Amino acid sequence: MRLYGMAMSGNCWKVATMLRLTGQDFEWVETDSNAGATRSEAFLAINPNGKVPVLVLDDNVILTESNAILLHLAEGTHWLPAPSLARTRVHEWLFFEQYSHEPYIAVARNLITWRREADLYPERLAECARRGAQALDVMERRLKDAHWLVGDSPTIADLALFAYTHRADEGGFDLSRWDGVARWIDRLAALPGITTLPRR
Amino acid sequence: MRLYGMAMSGNCWKVATMLRLTGQDFEWVETDSNAGATRSEAFLAINPNGKVPVLVLDDNVILTESNAILLHLAEGTHWLPAPSLARTRVHEWLFFEQYSHEPYIAVARNLITWRREADLYPERLAECARRGAQALDVMERRLKDAHWLVGDSPTIADLALFAYTHRADEGGFDLSRWDGVARWIDRLAALPGITTLPRR
Repeated sequence: MRLYGMAMSGNCWKVATMLRLTGQDFEWVETDSNAGATRSEAFLAINPNGKVPVLVLDDNVILTESNAILLHLAEGTHWLPAPSLARTRVHEWLFFEQYSHEPYIAVARNLITWRREADLYPERLAECARRGAQALDVMERRLKDAHWLVGDSPTIADLALFAYTHRADEGGFDLSRWDGVARWIDRLAALPGITTLPRR
Repeated sequence: MRLYGMAMSGNCWKVATMLRLTGQDFEWVETDSNAGATRSEAFLAINPNGKVPVLVLDDNVILTESNAILLHLAEGTHWLPAPSLARTRVHEWLFFEQYSHEPYIAVARNLITWRREADLYPERLAECARRGAQALDVMERRLKDAHWLVGDSPTIADLALFAYTHRADEGGFDLSRWDGVARWIDRLAALPGITTLPRR
């Protein structure tokens, strides 16, 4: 398998982590979207939507969308409950992550710490701060009393949300405001096979 | 069942349509997020993320996130393939819809036609026009030669993408630029049980 990804990206971290957790070998192809590598003609032929991660399976089937790839790799493992209310709860968190969390928490981290362009986007970053805090509030309501986002063991919902939450400080979020979230990060980071994203 | 939704919202249309297609009765509770109804304390007690649709099942279980609700209702029906590469393709389109399509095509429609605030958000609407066109280009690559987004029959991927695409003109998108998409809209609208969103 070949995984096109960007080392600093939480979306790409999700897929690499799931492959490691399920014991699957893969080749990593560094693809820096901040430098335009996902908009080249060669890359658009692989993923017309111009985004990483992209996972190319051994039979050359191409998979896109980090959370769809998580669902694909987790099917039949303890990382994804069988179809049931528990699986629906996993789906809810995966869509929450892509719609209400990543666009604020990941974008703030990229603009502030990785692209160092905070001065160019004051209004956008103000929205990221407000909406990102709302997303962390939603997580806190669950995690103040629960160890994991769904049920009583970790699932791909935890992996998907951990990806950008554990580096939210690089986007200006002080996680000491969200106790349950902070404890959950330590809990997940302590699991075997979990590595964390690089810092800048 | 009780469905909290906003009549003009494609995300809410998805859930109402799936309930009708699977022959399930429900009560509709109009909840206008443009008027702040999703930020009231009463509503936040139902969905702390402050968004519609919310589906309350007969046993009072609360489901959120339109595409997670689609997956829940479609499980075991012909609207969702069994776990397989085909189901993964459905997942890819569902995440594409929430991340790369809805934030541009639905937002443009709401700001331009429903809130009539285009003059307040020129930069945001320019981004919506550019990114929304990219999303339609991605759909066109599939639909120029295929009848449906996944496989050879309609799935919840088609329902999820139809929701805002069939009213994209209200966001300033001229669908005659995307032939395959336009034909797919007519094809889906002709299926039994499909109603369309109101126009303003």
